[in-house]
Amino acid sequence: MLSKAKIKYLQALQQKKNRLKENVFLVEGEKIVDEVLRQKLFNVHSIYATEAWINKNATILTPHETCLTTTTPNGLKKISSLKTPNSVLAVLEMPNYTSFVDKIQTSLNLVLENIQDPGNMGTIIRIADWFGIPHIFCSKGCVDIYNSKVVQASMGGFLRVQVHYVDLEALFQEHSTLPVYGAVLGGANAFKQSLKKPSFLLIGNEGKGLSAPIQKQITHKITIPKMGGAESLNAGVATGILCALFHQ
Amino acid sequence: MLSKAKIKYLQALQQKKNRLKENVFLVEGEKIVDEVLRQKLFNVHSIYATEAWINKNATILTPHETCLTTTTPNGLKKISSLKTPNSVLAVLEMPNYTSFVDKIQTSLNLVLENIQDPGNMGTIIRIADWFGIPHIFCSKGCVDIYNSKVVQASMGGFLRVQVHYVDLEALFQEHSTLPVYGAVLGGANAFKQSLKKPSFLLIGNEGKGLSAPIQKQITHKITIPKMGGAESLNAGVATGILCALFHQ
Repeated sequence: MLSKAKIKYLQALQQKKNRLKENVFLVEGEKIVDEVLRQKLFNVHSIYATEAWINKNATILTPHETCLTTTTPNGLKKISSLKTPNSVLAVLEMPNYTSFVDKIQTSLNLVLENIQDPGNMGTIIRIADWFGIPHIFCSKGCVDIYNSKVVQASMGGFLRVQVHYVDLEALFQEHSTLPVYGAVLGGANAFKQSLKKPSFLLIGNEGKGLSAPIQKQITHKITIPKMGGAESLNAGVATGILCALFHQ
Repeated sequence: MLSKAKIKYLQALQQKKNRLKENVFLVEGEKIVDEVLRQKLFNVHSIYATEAWINKNATILTPHETCLTTTTPNGLKKISSLKTPNSVLAVLEMPNYTSFVDKIQTSLNLVLENIQDPGNMGTIIRIADWFGIPHIFCSKGCVDIYNSKVVQASMGGFLRVQVHYVDLEALFQEHSTLPVYGAVLGGANAFKQSLKKPSFLLIGNEGKGLSAPIQKQITHKITIPKMGGAESLNAGVATGILCALFHQ
């Protein structure tokens, strides 16, 4: 049974400050919860699901029986962030990535400065997941990746891609041997460059692009050449095109 | 003054059937209306704006004085589809593209089957606008491009890119000499193909991909190679990557 106190607790998790305080976040939907339970990469804090879903998934639920709450569709509606609530919602502990420094030196690393739109952030995680990019480094001004819209738009990408909120200048300083490619207007034609890995690829804010101090960190300014009339590309699309060029 | 009847008429234009009946659509925002008035590509049916905006834009408004209505911010709130209404909204006549067949034979042509998400459709128009792709051909099952979310996401792209709703099979039959590249799972590696223009590039529905009858029209099945764990890429991102490869 879903108590009033539980409903209040789960609704509060829609806010970043409460997620951080509790060190947990929400995922919704049959497919994603199924994947979370099978992969066992995340610690499951609690699961809220309809009786029908629980009956269908008895086997994978065995290790989580103690944290399982049977919930009516109406109860799920109260705790869901979706317009059409799904039959299951899980509360997961935020991961604590500690040993990742070695992988930085072998791959393309995405670096985001102040990406604001949850849909763009989710799309970028999904792109990283497609191209097998293990890490995304975000400035502290980026949208929270545990925002429910980001989790949904990432289509499970957060299960495989490690996202870190860091001081970007310190990051570049620590790995000063790696080239830093920056997506800017008026850089070298990205189609004609030899884009090398391991490296960093730096993507800026949707409206403002990269800030002046961060632009100073760039070793290779690159631009997707424009042949038409548009002023800019969507941040997710630009990231997708550049990631494709790096993996071509 | 904004009469009650006008408010009702403008609110009704949020629906496709009313837009089609009246042969008009809405655009919102200072930047886009300014561009529309300067370019003179679209017939302006009417303009609703705050006094401050009208005073600032007197010169470009001279030819449109008879169809201009001074509106309070509160009035704009009633007719706007945006969360934060802008200071100007314009009603434009839908364009009637008649003489475009020649350009098909010289460019990459985007062809969309049942793209449903307004954000994706707007993003794809913006991509076409960036790469100078003059035409997008949509199946009748695609979202209406005069949906306000599409217009906003296209970032003015609808001013330069011509979008046509057509029978796709008839289109391919009429231009049967052009190659038809289709984005599918399990096609040839798009990074290794020589992607030629003039041609068609066919993109399918977000969840279902391309339908079986439309897949039969493809002459070159192509795929963006996957290196990680994601099941798919967002339709807008996939379109952006493939368009970049065609223009590389």
